[in-house]
Amino acid sequence: MVVVMKEQATPAEIENVIQRAESMGAQTQPIYGDNHTVIALVGDLTQVQRNTFDAMAGVQKTVRIQDPYKLASRTTHPEGTVIDVGGVRFGGDQVVVMAGPCSVESRDQIIETAIAVKEAGASVLRGGAFKPRTSPYSFQGLGEEGLKYLAEAREITGLPVISEVMTIEAIDLVAEYVDILQIGARNMQNYGLLQAVGKTNRPVMLKRGISGEIQELLMCAEYILSNGNMQVMLCERGIRTYETATRNTFDLNAIPVLKRASHLPVVADPAHGTGDWELVSPMSLAAVAAGADALILEVHPDPEAAMSDGDQSLKPARFADLMCSLHKVAEAVGRSIANPADPQDSTAAESRESLFANEIEQEAVPV
Amino acid sequence: MVVVMKEQATPAEIENVIQRAESMGAQTQPIYGDNHTVIALVGDLTQVQRNTFDAMAGVQKTVRIQDPYKLASRTTHPEGTVIDVGGVRFGGDQVVVMAGPCSVESRDQIIETAIAVKEAGASVLRGGAFKPRTSPYSFQGLGEEGLKYLAEAREITGLPVISEVMTIEAIDLVAEYVDILQIGARNMQNYGLLQAVGKTNRPVMLKRGISGEIQELLMCAEYILSNGNMQVMLCERGIRTYETATRNTFDLNAIPVLKRASHLPVVADPAHGTGDWELVSPMSLAAVAAGADALILEVHPDPEAAMSDGDQSLKPARFADLMCSLHKVAEAVGRSIANPADPQDSTAAESRESLFANEIEQEAVPV
Amino acid sequence: MVVVMKEQATPAEIENVIQRAESMGAQTQPIYGDNHTVIALVGDLTQVQRNTFDAMAGVQKTVRIQDPYKLASRTTHPEGTVIDVGGVRFGGDQVVVMAGPCSVESRDQIIETAIAVKEAGASVLRGGAFKPRTSPYSFQGLGEEGLKYLAEAREITGLPVISEVMTIEAIDLVAEYVDILQIGARNMQNYGLLQAVGKTNRPVMLKRGISGEIQELLMCAEYILSNGNMQVMLCERGIRTYETATRNTFDLNAIPVLKRASHLPVVADPAHGTGDWELVSPMSLAAVAAGADALILEVHPDPEAAMSDGDQSLKPARFADLMCSLHKVAEAVGRSIANPADPQDSTAAESRESLFANEIEQEAVPV
Amino acid sequence: MVVVMKEQATPAEIENVIQRAESMGAQTQPIYGDNHTVIALVGDLTQVQRNTFDAMAGVQKTVRIQDPYKLASRTTHPEGTVIDVGGVRFGGDQVVVMAGPCSVESRDQIIETAIAVKEAGASVLRGGAFKPRTSPYSFQGLGEEGLKYLAEAREITGLPVISEVMTIEAIDLVAEYVDILQIGARNMQNYGLLQAVGKTNRPVMLKRGISGEIQELLMCAEYILSNGNMQVMLCERGIRTYETATRNTFDLNAIPVLKRASHLPVVADPAHGTGDWELVSPMSLAAVAAGADALILEVHPDPEAAMSDGDQSLKPARFADLMCSLHKVAEAVGRSIANPADPQDSTAAESRESLFANEIEQEAVPV
Repeated sequence: MVVVMKEQATPAEIENVIQRAESMGAQTQPIYGDNHTVIALVGDLTQVQRNTFDAMAGVQKTVRIQDPYKLASRTTHPEGTVIDVGGVRFGGDQVVVMAGPCSVESRDQIIETAIAVKEAGASVLRGGAFKPRTSPYSFQGLGEEGLKYLAEAREITGLPVISEVMTIEAIDLVAEYVDILQIGARNMQNYGLLQAVGKTNRPVMLKRGISGEIQELLMCAEYILSNGNMQVMLCERGIRTYETATRNTFDLNAIPVLKRASHLPVVADPAHGTGDWELVSPMSLAAVAAGADALILEVHPDPEAAMSDGDQSLKPARFADLMCSLHKVAEAVGRSIANPADPQDSTAAESRESLFANEIEQEAVPV
Repeated sequence: MVVVMKEQATPAEIENVIQRAESMGAQTQPIYGDNHTVIALVGDLTQVQRNTFDAMAGVQKTVRIQDPYKLASRTTHPEGTVIDVGGVRFGGDQVVVMAGPCSVESRDQIIETAIAVKEAGASVLRGGAFKPRTSPYSFQGLGEEGLKYLAEAREITGLPVISEVMTIEAIDLVAEYVDILQIGARNMQNYGLLQAVGKTNRPVMLKRGISGEIQELLMCAEYILSNGNMQVMLCERGIRTYETATRNTFDLNAIPVLKRASHLPVVADPAHGTGDWELVSPMSLAAVAAGADALILEVHPDPEAAMSDGDQSLKPARFADLMCSLHKVAEAVGRSIANPADPQDSTAAESRESLFANEIEQEAVPV
Repeated sequence: MVVVMKEQATPAEIENVIQRAESMGAQTQPIYGDNHTVIALVGDLTQVQRNTFDAMAGVQKTVRIQDPYKLASRTTHPEGTVIDVGGVRFGGDQVVVMAGPCSVESRDQIIETAIAVKEAGASVLRGGAFKPRTSPYSFQGLGEEGLKYLAEAREITGLPVISEVMTIEAIDLVAEYVDILQIGARNMQNYGLLQAVGKTNRPVMLKRGISGEIQELLMCAEYILSNGNMQVMLCERGIRTYETATRNTFDLNAIPVLKRASHLPVVADPAHGTGDWELVSPMSLAAVAAGADALILEVHPDPEAAMSDGDQSLKPARFADLMCSLHKVAEAVGRSIANPADPQDSTAAESRESLFANEIEQEAVPV
Repeated sequence: MVVVMKEQATPAEIENVIQRAESMGAQTQPIYGDNHTVIALVGDLTQVQRNTFDAMAGVQKTVRIQDPYKLASRTTHPEGTVIDVGGVRFGGDQVVVMAGPCSVESRDQIIETAIAVKEAGASVLRGGAFKPRTSPYSFQGLGEEGLKYLAEAREITGLPVISEVMTIEAIDLVAEYVDILQIGARNMQNYGLLQAVGKTNRPVMLKRGISGEIQELLMCAEYILSNGNMQVMLCERGIRTYETATRNTFDLNAIPVLKRASHLPVVADPAHGTGDWELVSPMSLAAVAAGADALILEVHPDPEAAMSDGDQSLKPARFADLMCSLHKVAEAVGRSIANPADPQDSTAAESRESLFANEIEQEAVPV
């Protein structure tokens, strides 16, 4: 860390900063410039609090040098992490396509969609049973009934299932039925929930909050990782900016930035990212070109009748067309699309059985 | 609601929209412009979903006419709501000042601060026992121990207490010790938590999320109100923008906008809003001039030693100076600062006793 | 246009709005909803001012139905516009790559770079002679000397040249030497400059301002088009958001949004968009996958020695690698990369001769 | 400046940075932390370019220590600057109120308004003759005719006049008629224009761009100051954020931030800042409470008939009410409102005579 003193800082103020830093265990190296004095802190900084210095007289600002996250960092883990979900591998050479409706609305709807997306080449089925809605008066999801239909769709198609969990209390229930736990954008910084899914051994897809900085997303992943669950994927789903031509600004830059900063697999969600089904196809192709490890897409047999997000859902035929184009773009960048017909392995069932197995391993996490 | 058709929309597409709207119970009035056809939906719109139309062929966009919130709206409740917390009245003629440290760090620290802020004229004591922190490696608050110290500080000073609650499970515990439940910015859209505090009868201060739209804040208040708890205050605490000269952009415009849109009391938090103690005084004065019903400020006896937010905390002497200026500005806009020495009433103790009393009344809420 | 009245609007206020609208030549259709009255304005709206109604008593808001731009709109011009610059065609099947240094720094530098980018497959040479710089103390470009070097580089390589023009007075000078006039992001809304380049017949690349809305960009294009110059390309180059992991947020969504809204060719500038050379390759591939008609890239023989933007410039070898990947992605989406060795036509020299030829044609523009 | 190396940086890369810095005249102090090496640059940095290091292998980022502006900085000029415009003093103890219509629409309109705002207590008359408009099809101002009416209104009322200048060519014309040159938000970074008004001796009010950072605003002021014109005022007028409840987000925090960073007077423009006349009064009071040296307000005798910005204009009676409240708030913060009836001096006429007088003095500017 570097503490930049004000131009007018007195020798006593500079000395105060040095003493405070050393009392926290840091070594200090003052640098006397023509106008500003700068104090570099080195050595053991684990007890050093940045705010302390920002509150001290004579201090202009502090500058962090090290990343505040460790387990999520590619520096400490240069190899990319591959997460295996019932034979579907996230973060490897293949790009995984997850597809399905925004909400599970009925048994028929989810099964029909599951079959359609599998036929078109999706490897994972998505579907929401618990829905966070802006209005308390909107449809809030089918709850456990929806989870059961998802599980049934998995039995029929063999596709692993991803679904959102919104509260700590619901983790056990959701994990009973699904293969990947999704943490939604609104809960990116719901730290209690992050810690709780960190204590399960179920893979987690963590979505970037609508105003989440990339560094914050990595810090939130750190909450999960530091509780022992190393199977975390990061999902870009659009950020809030001044532009209103798209519902959100799908921040595709986040994909290469996250791949550079972290070893965790990166998922792109162009449906929420743009909020506009006509943009989903071009932005899906762009996401794969930019290096996304997976896509999560909304497919609905009858978007006009959808109980949520119909405006950003693809019809099955359009989804099938998109899959053809995705194959070509994946190939152009030296990858391929994961094939559901040929899972490399099939441990989905087993992995679902032992929800808290990793609590034992947790001790070993090198924080 | 108004559905705007594309210029190229066919008569069949227009007819489809009309039929869909009428099948949902709405009446329709098509308007044939020179370029666009627009379909107005009137009558009973309770079953109408906007997304449905956005997903239909030939539709360019939909425009909402009515506000999506009802209980929070000033239209349905023209009189301003006054919330009485142990004789301290939020939303009336007086401006309430809440002050205290960001975190409760020790018994001595909170009691010393409580006495200092009371002497300077604050009417409510703040202090965090459960702290949401960006890093899993940071101080997370003293928990119940902190709540006990807060309660003890209340006994000594007579000041009602406000503190944050972060999880549903902690509501009972926090409500046992504090007078006002604070919902933090990161939890603005934690709908489960909102519903749960909505089922208590404890006053709630709901903070705007760092990227919360004003309308979303009102929708989140609606989650609390629609569960039966009518004692909700809204708090502006800074939004995330491109500007980095201040930690956040404290959006003072939100104060008159919220006062116009809603009957709920509005609180301003310039410490989090700006993240810079040197800006707290001018922005506190500005907030009162703009019409805020209350301020929540960070005061710490030794900001440099604070375990969190020292950089945005005032020392007691500076806080006392600010109080003098606040009295003058309040008077200039025809108000006064609430006086802790003279609570108009003192029902704090009683109001804390019956946490779920309003569950019975909840039926009567006119949603 | 639709005028939404407040719930409390009186019959007199409603009548006032109707009369005002009709006095401006519009026809009105009032719709009486359960809560709000809405007044639709149809017919001839050319004399109608939106602000008028926003200022009237009883009015809640106004909603625009028609796009405010006409000449730039795809509705009025469904076929995509193709702009031919010396045989290089923007907006057709081929994707054009423009490359070169941020600033022209010396004769050797620009000629060396021009040869290198041509060899790697670029079709147009870029280079700044007049540089808008944040600091008055920074290098401001070589001016006319730089333009001469650019022209010499064109003679040697045959590549048409693009360079920025910052002031009305400089248009003639810049147009004497370059093939495409670039309007920089800071000047997107410099209306005098837009009108002036609109009166030339030189192709113009208009960059989106750092906080330009997509609709505003189209309105700015309209300033050029409505002065008679129909050869306008739109360029996405990153917008300002809260995220600081990238210098700007390169808004790739703008590409399909602009292609849908307008017939004008769309250029992507990932170097300025991200401000980080490591991100330029993935985001270039993504831009082509998303449908960009052209890329503009920064290539410098020695980025570390560059007088501006070295941090976002590619070295020639890296640029050559990127070109290989671009060919594959272009093919994957059914296009190809324009080939400089084989211009389909070569009218660059002629088109440069008659700068104001289109002033005559201007009468015919159907506004 | 500080150069932060990547964790993986090699000794050769570190050495390269050191050599490059020293070749530019800087002295270097490397600091070897446990993970990162950091290189501090001290001494003469005038030839150092930050971009150079960002482009070098092994560099993670660079951190600027010194402010990039000098003449605008309070560090180099601790006393606040007071600008005298015909006896009206900006930046002193008194708060100046400037008022008038957005656009000059007719002789009667501007004279009637000038008399009304003077009666209510405004000290300066505003009015636009050249209007930057988003649409090329909108009213663009009366031009010189408007300037003449403004001058006539000044003769009648004695109020100095402020009006916008949009192009270099128009400076002489505008300066012939007005006392303060306004640079609009869209032209904040029109560097040619800034340099040109910097060569006049007319006071300049520079508005913050809609996405201007506070530091950029100060850099733009530096463009004017470094050309010899020391009479610059800075104006906050709202920034673009995600929030749409107000047209812009009027960033009141900028007022104390600018007062701390710079010695230049600070003006607040709540009409453009919010875009909503109902918010103008509370935000004007807040601006004065936060420390603004002046306000610029839109007053129109008939806002509904205004040719621009009617929605954010006050009627004269409402403006008079606001002036009463402003007096009280100014007093509460230890200031008063400047009184037009009693200008402390009256050199307006003279100051207008010698437009380029300061070209001679310019040599003496200590850059």
